Parts: sequence; C-alpha cells; structure tokens
Amino acid sequence: MNTRYIVSILGKLLLVEALLLLAPFAVAVYYGEETVFAYALTMGLLLLVGGATFLLKGKNGIIRPREGLATAGLAWIVFSLFGALPLWMTGDIPVYLDAVFEVVSGFTTTGATILADVEALSQSALFWRSLTHWIGGMGVLVFALAILPATDTKSMHLMRAEMAGPEVSKLVSKIRLTARLLYVIYIVLTLIEFVLLLFGDMPVYDALTHSFATAGTGGFSNKALSVGAYESPYIEWVITAFMLLFSINFNLFYLVLIGNFASLFKNEELRCFLCIVLGATAIITLNILPLYDSIGEAIRKAAFQVVSIMSTAGFATADFNLWPNLSRTLLVLLMFFGACAGSTGGGMKIYRIMVVCKTAVAQIRRQIDPRLINPIKVEGAILNPATRSGITAYMFAFFAIFAVSNLLLCFDDTSLVVNFTAVVTCINNVGPGLEEIGPMGSFAGFSPFSKLVLIFDMLVGRLEIFPVLALFAPSAWKKS
Amino acid sequence: MNTRYIVSILGKLLLVEALLLLAPFAVAVYYGEETVFAYALTMGLLLLVGGATFLLKGKNGIIRPREGLATAGLAWIVFSLFGALPLWMTGDIPVYLDAVFEVVSGFTTTGATILADVEALSQSALFWRSLTHWIGGMGVLVFALAILPATDTKSMHLMRAEMAGPEVSKLVSKIRLTARLLYVIYIVLTLIEFVLLLFGDMPVYDALTHSFATAGTGGFSNKALSVGAYESPYIEWVITAFMLLFSINFNLFYLVLIGNFASLFKNEELRCFLCIVLGATAIITLNILPLYDSIGEAIRKAAFQVVSIMSTAGFATADFNLWPNLSRTLLVLLMFFGACAGSTGGGMKIYRIMVVCKTAVAQIRRQIDPRLINPIKVEGAILNPATRSGITAYMFAFFAIFAVSNLLLCFDDTSLVVNFTAVVTCINNVGPGLEEIGPMGSFAGFSPFSKLVLIFDMLVGRLEIFPVLALFAPSAWKKS
Repeated sequence: MNTRYIVSILGKLLLVEALLLLAPFAVAVYYGEETVFAYALTMGLLLLVGGATFLLKGKNGIIRPREGLATAGLAWIVFSLFGALPLWMTGDIPVYLDAVFEVVSGFTTTGATILADVEALSQSALFWRSLTHWIGGMGVLVFALAILPATDTKSMHLMRAEMAGPEVSKLVSKIRLTARLLYVIYIVLTLIEFVLLLFGDMPVYDALTHSFATAGTGGFSNKALSVGAYESPYIEWVITAFMLLFSINFNLFYLVLIGNFASLFKNEELRCFLCIVLGATAIITLNILPLYDSIGEAIRKAAFQVVSIMSTAGFATADFNLWPNLSRTLLVLLMFFGACAGSTGGGMKIYRIMVVCKTAVAQIRRQIDPRLINPIKVEGAILNPATRSGITAYMFAFFAIFAVSNLLLCFDDTSLVVNFTAVVTCINNVGPGLEEIGPMGSFAGFSPFSKLVLIFDMLVGRLEIFPVLALFAPSAWKKS
Repeated sequence: MNTRYIVSILGKLLLVEALLLLAPFAVAVYYGEETVFAYALTMGLLLLVGGATFLLKGKNGIIRPREGLATAGLAWIVFSLFGALPLWMTGDIPVYLDAVFEVVSGFTTTGATILADVEALSQSALFWRSLTHWIGGMGVLVFALAILPATDTKSMHLMRAEMAGPEVSKLVSKIRLTARLLYVIYIVLTLIEFVLLLFGDMPVYDALTHSFATAGTGGFSNKALSVGAYESPYIEWVITAFMLLFSINFNLFYLVLIGNFASLFKNEELRCFLCIVLGATAIITLNILPLYDSIGEAIRKAAFQVVSIMSTAGFATADFNLWPNLSRTLLVLLMFFGACAGSTGGGMKIYRIMVVCKTAVAQIRRQIDPRLINPIKVEGAILNPATRSGITAYMFAFFAIFAVSNLLLCFDDTSLVVNFTAVVTCINNVGPGLEEIGPMGSFAGFSPFSKLVLIFDMLVGRLEIFPVLALFAPSAWKKS
C-alpha cells in the first residue's frame, strides 16, 4: 500500500474541510452565537494537521485500485472525526460519540439522528448538520477533485471508490472537468429548489438547510416534525419533485444539457425506478386511504414517503410508523432498493437490482431448459461479466454485514423490529426506521457499542462496502 | 411439455400414497378409532384415480429437465391434496385448507402446525402427520423410484428435481439402486433412533412418531410441549444426535459404509456445518446461562435448539421465544443456513452458503487487486460455473419470494415479527417462528389467504424453488 500517497491526499482533504467550516462559522457570526469559537478552533486544528502533511517529502509513486479504495475509506472516517468536533465543543451534542454518529449520518446522507429534540440545537450546528448532507451527497473526494489539481489516472481510482453505483463513466475526457461539471449541475439544482421553497413562504434559513438535505438525499431537518412541520402541500410537492430529481443518475442531466433528450427516455434504470415509485405509491395510497380526509391528501403523503424512502432522503410528512403493516413493510423493503446509480441517493441502487433480477430470470430459464443461450442485456448492451461479479460480491458482502450488525445490536434492550430497521435504514443511508427510531423518534436510546456498529453500517452503505473492507483486508496492506 | 408422461408418473404416485395410508389405517384399527373409514375411503379414491391414469395409451416420449421439474412440483401438490383428505374427513382438522396446510407442513418436513391443541388429535391422525415427515424427508419421488421400475435417463431428471442441494450424485450406477440404498440407510438410522428412544422409557408410539419426525427433520410432535414434554436429558441428547446425523449428506453414510472413513473428515461442508453448530451453541449457552440452573442444562438446551433449527427439524425443549434477543436473532439467522446438501434437512444448505461466501471473498479480493486470478475451490475441486449460476439464481429467487410473501402476509393483523419469522420458518422448512408462532404457539391465527401463501412457501422451500417455478413458467409449457 502506498501510504505516502494516502496521507498526502488526506492532508489536502483536511484543508478542504477547514474551508467548508467557514459556512457554519459565518452562520454563528450572523446569529451572534457563542458557538463561533468552536468552528474557529476546529478550522485552526484542520489547517495545522493538514498543513503538516505537506512536510512529507518524496515522490508519490504508483496508485492502484487498493489505494483508491483505502483513501476513500479513510477520508470519510477522518472527515467525520474532525467534523464532529465543533458539535461536541459547543455542547450542542455533549457526548463526542454522539456527535460522530450525527456527522457520519450527515456525510453519508443517512439522516438518522441521535437528537431527541432537534430544535434545541444552535443555528450554526443545524446549518453544519445540513451542509454535511450536501457535501456527502456528491462525495468528499469528488469535491476535492473538482478544486484540487491532480493527474487523471490517479483521480479515476479515487472517483471510482466513492461514486454510487457499480460503474463510473467520465462525462468528459478529464476527471477534473467531470467532477466540476457534476458540481455545477448539483449547485444549479440545489439553487432552483432553494428558490422554489422560498416561493412557498419557507424561511430563508429553512429553505437553505432543506435544499442541502434534499440535494444530498440526506434527510436532516431543522424541525422536529420534518417537512410535515410546514403543513404546506406546495412545499411537500416541491421537495417530492427534487428528491426524485436527485435520485436520478447525474449523467442524464449532462446528456439532457447537451441536447440529448432521447437518452432520458431510453434509460432503463430510470424507467424501472419510476415504475417502482408509481407502483408503490399506488399501493400505499390505497392502504392509507382510510386514515386521511381526501384521496388527494393520501396520494400526497404516500408519494412523498415513497420518494423520500427510495431516494433515501428519509424526510417525513407523516408518522408512517402509524400506517398499516402493508405500507410499513413495503417502505422497509423499498429502503433496500434505493435510488439510481450515479445519483446522490443510497441503497443498493436500482441498477444493481435490475442486474440481479435479469441474471436470476436468465438462470431460472436455463434451469428449465439447460440448452438455452440468453445473454443478459442491461441498458441495451450485453452485461460485462466483471460488473456482474462485482455486483454479486457487493450483494453478499452487504447481506453478511447486515446479518452480523443485526446480531451485534441484540446486546441492546431494543425490540427486534427496532434492531432490524435500524440496520436497514443505516446501511441503506435512509434515516428513519420503525417504532422508537421512526420518523418522529431518534437513535438516542442505543448503547455506545450499537452506535459504533451503526456508524460502521452507514459508512459501509455510503461507500458501497469495498472501500471500507479494503481498510480491513490484510491483502490490501501487503507490500507489493 | 410432455403431459402424458407427467400424468402417468402422477398416477403411479397416487397408488404409492394409497399404500402409505395403510399405516395410519392400521393404527386406527389397532386403537379401535372411528377414523378408520376416512383412511379406507381415501385409499379407495387414490386407487380409483391412480388406476384411471393407466387407461392412457401411447408412448411416453422424451423427457427433459422441464418435465422432471414440473412432475416434482405437481407430485407434491397432488400428494398433499389427497393426503389432507383423511385428516379433514375424520374431523381431526375441520377445515380442509387447514388440513392441507398441516399435510404440506408434514411432507415438506416443516413442522409448522395450525393446531392449537395437538394432543386432542386421534392417534391415527398424529401417526399420519408424523409419517408424512418421514416420507417427505427423503422425497416422494425418490420413494417411488425405489419401488417402481423406470429407465435411468428419465429418473435422473426426477431425482434431480426433488433432492436437496445444488448437485445430485448417483451413489451407484443405477438410479433405482441409488434410491434403494438411500432408503436402506434412512430406515436403518430411523430404527436405531427408535430403539434408543425406547431405552429412554419413551412409549413405543411416541418413539416411533418422534423417530419419523427426526429422520425427516420435520418436527411434528404428538406432545404440546414437543420433546420438552418428556423432561429427560437422555431423550434430548438422543434426538440432538439424530437431528445432527440426518443433517449430513447421505452420500457420506454410503462412503463410510463401504469403508471410506477418510471422506468423512475431508468433507468441507460437514466441517463447516459442525463449526457453525458449535459456535452458535457456545454463543447461545453464554446468552441463556442466567435463565438455567446449571451450565450443563444451558448447554443441553442450547445445543438441542441450535441443532433443531439448523437441521430444520424444529423440535423444542424450551420456549426460545423467552430467550434474550441475541439468541432469538441468531436462531432466526440459522434458519436460513439449514442443513447439508443431500440430507433430509431444509434451509439454503451449508453448501450453497459456502459457495456464496467463497465467491464473495474471491470477488472482494478482486476489487482490491483487479489483476488477481483466484479460482474458487469447493470440496477440493474448482467450482463448476453452471453450479455457481444455479446457486445465484436460487438465492435471488429465494429472496424475491421471501420479500413478496412478507408483503402478502401484511393483510393479516399479525405483528411484523410474526410475519417475518413465519416466512423464514416456512420457506426454510423449519417449523416454529417467534411470538405467537413460537415453539409453543401455532399458525392457527393466520387468515386462509396467508395460509395459502405459507403453503406455497413451504413447497418452494422443500423443492428448492425451480420445480415450483417451472409450473408457473410459460416457457416450460410451450410445445417444442
């Protein structure tokens, strides 16, 4: 393993984080909060530690996939450990582990909170919480790639390790330009949502934090009742629409921008995603109809919740914990599906589900007729065997980590449903689960050990397993 | 699809079932029960319908895998529909659907019961219930193959469709001889258990029914408290030992019989199975220690329950519903694992779990180092790609059916834990679940619709999916 390279990248990332902390620092100054010292202190510390890595001399050497994976894994851990400092120092979250949980939940765009009373937090803390979603959505490395100079071959391994989905395509020939393009699309969409929310009479501060959380498909809200607090159908529909947009592969936005509208209709993953959204919304609407005054309201609540869960944002406009079992089970099932590859959403990704289903159907047909030769086509092209192998490995590692996490959570006194949905919602980066950890609940009741397990699950989910596993694989650290 | 062939096999199977019903008929006569008429009537009906198929004239034509799969699927459904008749006619189970549930649970060696009070049943009904386990354990087609004349090429497709595990090997050159050999081993082991149980002062009738249920890894008991009713450590250990034996690939018994003891120690699946049994027993012993008087008792209860769940027998000596969450979650997880391939046990089979784990590890290592070439070896040989594809298809079909069944059960008022564990325990042919359907509970509370879903799951689980899917696949029924 090329540790010199990894350390030098991590050092640069710390400087980037110092830059990002300027935002909550400014908010603290604006609101005249005492918390301002904590942000200043953390920024100083980041500059010191990040700057120290520049003292490392020598050449960086070659970079292989393992360095990309390990860098991504470490980057997120280091980013979270430093990012939690201000929340802890200000006393907003008195226990450091809880602050780490909250910040990991932010960066990984999970949106699960350990806060029993969100509204008691300072404005700067709430702002930083929402901003972590926005940074984590597109990825901390992609952000660094967009602003730092680096060669293409090295960057590709980094980008591949962090981006959501089984395959990464460069939009344009240069990685750095691709990263910038992605960020431009991201910023523009976030701004449009911000403006539309202002039209709905949402306060500026709230519109900004909710836009950040929607864009990253995170789900932190500065209201205890989440989006439901505004009691505005207009705001609910705007956020539904943008959660949907941020669940789509960003490559499609680029293709539409350069005038290739046909790609939008030809995209198999998008069609599949929309079909699932519509189907699930229809089922849940019928199921919850007796609970609401009008069919319009039932459709709005159902659509919001389905899109919120599938995009893995995890916002809520209703306590779906109180919905019938069919809706609750369906929502938990949809948590596994997640959004499209190449979006800011989490979960397994529709692309992987499609590949798995098509492979299974082809092989079941082969059981019935062994002479059958039926190549599997995805997005119009025959599936690359390496992609399929990667997806199989991903799936099994996913379920193995899922099962072990579930067992480890049993040392707590929580119910089986809480344990199960806690792991589902964290590993898929959704946010709320059922019962005590439902949309109106919090993760405060878990033991420190369980919180560590769930922090691990959130990171594993966001980084799609391999970067985190690479950190623990002895083979990755072997000298070559 | 060659329907003529399928009908002619089904006809013969009905005659075989008539023969099998002689046993409960004899029990009814011995105990002077009024139920005797129901068995006589059912036998008459079976002879009539089965005999009628002999009127079909013409050649049978060629047999492909699809005929094997469809025959196996239909055979089990027909066997169950007729097998439920006597239980319903005698009034032992007043609702026909419940009787079908009970008999499917018997034949598939699940052992889930809809009976709130087992001990209220007639002796003949209890005997038939246990006998269905014994027949289903080795397979109804294998039984037919052992006693009916048939050509080898045709039989192989039948045997392959019904046997547990991803690969079927003939022990000797002839299928019929293989089937007979398997049954001889099966009968001898059952007899030894029967005798050992008698030594433990178990009544003859109980020893017979419990031996049947252990051999088939079914789990029906004629006692409401299951094996716990006898309060005998000796009986518990004997049944633990035999549940373990019946979880082992029967090929190993044959190899040991012909003097090849080395094969026992070289068998990777067996080693893996025993390691999981020992590990899980150790964890559960520590977890339940505070609930029992001595460590010996805790070990006995833990070992019995772990082996009972992994063998998928589903007997109980304690209400594990009252154990801590860690033990309960671990037991539910072990239900998925199941026994070894080629045994009478259910679940996914250790062999499949091994293949999946090895494939995942190899592919995770390939993510870290893409140039790595590492062929996957199982049982000392490089894994056949067709076997691996079959296992992948099996796994994904399994989880898809699992998810849909869980959703369909939501129309009932049962809790999420009951729904989840009902599907786990039925699709893996274990028997008990958690809460109301725990080892001391019953499936009586489910609606008829939910019972149908669970009947489907039990059949899908026992036949390892493909034979049941073949019945519904349009491609299987296409004229060729």
